[in-house]
Amino acid sequence: MSFKVVIVGGVAAGPKVAAKIMRLNPEAEVTVVEKGKFLSYAGCGLPYYISGMVKDQKDLMSTPIGVVRDTAFFQKVKNVRILNETEAIEIDRARKRVRALPKGKKEEIWLDYDKLVLATGAKPVIPPIPNVNLGNIYTLHGMHDAEAIKSLLGEARARDVVIVGGGLIGVETTEALVHSGCRVTLVEMLPQVLRVLDWEMARLVEQHMESHGVKVMTNTQVTAFEGEDRVTGVMTTRGHLPADMVILAIGVKPNVDLARAADLAIGPNGGIRVDDTMRTSDPNIYAAGDCVETTDLVTGKPCFVPLGSTANKQGRVAAINVCGGTDRFPGVLGSTVCKVFDFCVARTGLTEAAARQHGYETVMVLVPDVDRAHYIPGAQLIVMKLVVDARTRKLLGAQAVGSGVGDKRIDVAAMALTAGMTVDQLSQADLCYAPPYATALDAIITAANVARNKLDGLLAGISSQEVKQRLDAKEDFVFLDVRSPAEHAETHLAGSTLIPLGALRARLNELPKDKEIIAFCKASLRGYEAARILQGAGFTRVRVMDGGVAAWPFEKCH
Amino acid sequence: MSFKVVIVGGVAAGPKVAAKIMRLNPEAEVTVVEKGKFLSYAGCGLPYYISGMVKDQKDLMSTPIGVVRDTAFFQKVKNVRILNETEAIEIDRARKRVRALPKGKKEEIWLDYDKLVLATGAKPVIPPIPNVNLGNIYTLHGMHDAEAIKSLLGEARARDVVIVGGGLIGVETTEALVHSGCRVTLVEMLPQVLRVLDWEMARLVEQHMESHGVKVMTNTQVTAFEGEDRVTGVMTTRGHLPADMVILAIGVKPNVDLARAADLAIGPNGGIRVDDTMRTSDPNIYAAGDCVETTDLVTGKPCFVPLGSTANKQGRVAAINVCGGTDRFPGVLGSTVCKVFDFCVARTGLTEAAARQHGYETVMVLVPDVDRAHYIPGAQLIVMKLVVDARTRKLLGAQAVGSGVGDKRIDVAAMALTAGMTVDQLSQADLCYAPPYATALDAIITAANVARNKLDGLLAGISSQEVKQRLDAKEDFVFLDVRSPAEHAETHLAGSTLIPLGALRARLNELPKDKEIIAFCKASLRGYEAARILQGAGFTRVRVMDGGVAAWPFEKCH
Repeated sequence: MSFKVVIVGGVAAGPKVAAKIMRLNPEAEVTVVEKGKFLSYAGCGLPYYISGMVKDQKDLMSTPIGVVRDTAFFQKVKNVRILNETEAIEIDRARKRVRALPKGKKEEIWLDYDKLVLATGAKPVIPPIPNVNLGNIYTLHGMHDAEAIKSLLGEARARDVVIVGGGLIGVETTEALVHSGCRVTLVEMLPQVLRVLDWEMARLVEQHMESHGVKVMTNTQVTAFEGEDRVTGVMTTRGHLPADMVILAIGVKPNVDLARAADLAIGPNGGIRVDDTMRTSDPNIYAAGDCVETTDLVTGKPCFVPLGSTANKQGRVAAINVCGGTDRFPGVLGSTVCKVFDFCVARTGLTEAAARQHGYETVMVLVPDVDRAHYIPGAQLIVMKLVVDARTRKLLGAQAVGSGVGDKRIDVAAMALTAGMTVDQLSQADLCYAPPYATALDAIITAANVARNKLDGLLAGISSQEVKQRLDAKEDFVFLDVRSPAEHAETHLAGSTLIPLGALRARLNELPKDKEIIAFCKASLRGYEAARILQGAGFTRVRVMDGGVAAWPFEKCH
Repeated sequence: MSFKVVIVGGVAAGPKVAAKIMRLNPEAEVTVVEKGKFLSYAGCGLPYYISGMVKDQKDLMSTPIGVVRDTAFFQKVKNVRILNETEAIEIDRARKRVRALPKGKKEEIWLDYDKLVLATGAKPVIPPIPNVNLGNIYTLHGMHDAEAIKSLLGEARARDVVIVGGGLIGVETTEALVHSGCRVTLVEMLPQVLRVLDWEMARLVEQHMESHGVKVMTNTQVTAFEGEDRVTGVMTTRGHLPADMVILAIGVKPNVDLARAADLAIGPNGGIRVDDTMRTSDPNIYAAGDCVETTDLVTGKPCFVPLGSTANKQGRVAAINVCGGTDRFPGVLGSTVCKVFDFCVARTGLTEAAARQHGYETVMVLVPDVDRAHYIPGAQLIVMKLVVDARTRKLLGAQAVGSGVGDKRIDVAAMALTAGMTVDQLSQADLCYAPPYATALDAIITAANVARNKLDGLLAGISSQEVKQRLDAKEDFVFLDVRSPAEHAETHLAGSTLIPLGALRARLNELPKDKEIIAFCKASLRGYEAARILQGAGFTRVRVMDGGVAAWPFEKCH
């Protein structure tokens, strides 16, 4: 008798499980039940399909060689039976079978299994806002959403679009719609977009979006949608916004209806609970992808971080274990990257805010640096933030924002987190160097060295937020800009005093020894150098502003 | 009495040591003795200055803000005394002083030190070839060489250039001179360029250089240079080459004259021997940069790997220890990256050849993959090679060659090596994913998974070299191409039989069960899939050719 596997879900983790099982056990009889029409499409590519960067729907559903992953493909190439447009509606755990209903049919079918794999994914959160069901209000959760949104971008195009929610999907969709000629307002309830970043890093992203014409409204709640059939406007706690189209990007929640009805254990974040073999509370049922909870590798706690990269890895692990092998999925760091116009925005591990919530005593550094030798055309800035455990000196998290290649540095940080490295170890990493690819001390190594200087008491930092509060409160301190006169003339920060680093040793007498001095430059290396000179000359209250002018999240004077 | 430090060498590690010491101990009295005129210039940037990518000599000698790092800069900003155009000629260890001679002067000076730091760098190897002293024969070792080479690229430009030596500098200089309009022949004694790669990976680089008009002659020795005053030709074991200019890029050796004369310990590779605090055999003398040996982190053995990235890290460690602190430099992986026209060539750890020499039983994988989602415009191929310890499953080394972003993957591999990870651990790394930056399973994770399949016996590989030998010997086997007819029509490998993967299950009867079958596709995923189908159908002698058509290092049919 053959080994029967039923997989519910045919988009990301499901097809991965099916293909891997067939490679491990060519005798297996694998059936994939998928509610929708399309299989194995690149959901993460939808914003790029909307923007027109990806020309053809088919490109998102094809292998790299251009073969469409349709029912026939899975049958012929993978020997996997696909039941698409078929909804799984019940798991009969006692008899090990799944009840399913093909679309438009009344007759249900029963599918027997030896092992069942749930890859039911996530579903978008629809907020309980009045009139949320008006026309032209969409989520971006599948090909049908993308097609509907694209259809409004034609001749009678939607000019004013309101995006509700500043998470990854909201931000990516914002860019796609700006490229399509829309006027986009992004409305976010929280004080910042991209909660996966700390506030001052998210602020840099918001400034960049604003420079591309996006209106970013944080601390703003949508109270109602307006319109007859179709949406025409959005009421918010900060006023009325015209809207021809609205995208709801509040977030997603795991799709656990089937699992819950079958009494499978659900975790604290609402996802299916699985062990590290991807097995649910029923030994014959596995689950993978956006419907499950996993483990946060830094805190060791359960978390819900739905990502295509994780879905694929979990699918492979589930397949191996379904086939009687042994593989384990250890957990995630929440590593992610996002293109926001010209910016690469990447992060891994804990934010400073999250680390503090988890009870860590943290040291943070904010280090702007170039992504390759500054004399190579195309060199771009990255603002790097590292969050470090002050007690163990271990890295807890990293963030990168800027036009430069940040994803590379965050992948390195992710590896350091995986290995539980201290910033001391990270600072000695032998990373690739040549002028077109990195600086001799790579940006992340420099950031690690700054962290070491802070941990060793050589450098006392102060955040730009705290400096701003002091400036606003008109506190008495010297806000010392040590950049060049040319840099100062181009951009400066209100309330600052200019003494270029090269002149500092000769002009020490201009500075009061009884006041606090907060030094800064563009990135803060010269600010640090200035602080060391001042300390050497007997100034005792000297700090350096983290991130300098490059990472200043407030207004600058031009 | 103040703390006196003398540093010999003012290019890379030396200035780093000086600046860091002054930040740690602003009271210190630091003197840098530099033989040449220029300080702290970016030696690694010289090829880009020759090519014209970097317009101005000054760009290589400036801070990112554009301040030239000259004598005045070091004095004013760093409070470091610079004696440039001054040669250190003797160390008097007993009296802790250095004898130096300013250029063009007869009067020597003596410099007392509490701690001495040697940062004397490396010097180019000049091969004992007849007429090696002819005009227009250069090394590329300093600003003066770059200026001399550039002066020949003007109106009466050197058309025919022979580059002797296919290492990193030879290859980078090749590209620079092709961009300058020269006809370049690269002559290499060994069977391959870039010995830091394995042969078949180097072959891909050679093919790419050839596609840009470079004549690559491996297995070729230069026997003499010809000409009266200036070089006009090069005699080699494979014939005569015309030459208006010759670049000698045989390699560099550590500059240890001063250290040797002072009886400091020298290591087995000819560099100054230091411990992991960068201290030489004299407790008052430290050394850093291209003049020292360091430890290979994979083998634990001493090695000589001169790189600017290492020099900077070692300089920081030396400075901390000179100032009484404690820091350690653990060693290197030989991570490096090199731009070769449109290719990014990167590597870390041991090559397969080196791993075998060191007695490891290895498993290797050769995996071509895209660097971002294949539907994103600009997605490019990377051929990744991983070398794995068959016994422990630990990664030993990684190489990446191709137009895609390889340096990112090699930095990830370098972190995995630093942490001593197995390929199983590497395959579960939570790396950043979004379609413009990576595939859902990043190229290095896919490569790690292929390695796991090999280690687990799911996939039996065969190298393209071995396949070529069998084809040449007309051995009887089926060389099975499972790509599409369209791909086959565009490029195919001589001697292969086409059965597209999608048709394989239906056409199994066309294949003989008694012969060995070697399957392949473009990258080898479909080849692997084909092998699993064949094995499932009772074929017992099936292997998959590593790297497929994409990494085939021999001629292809078009």
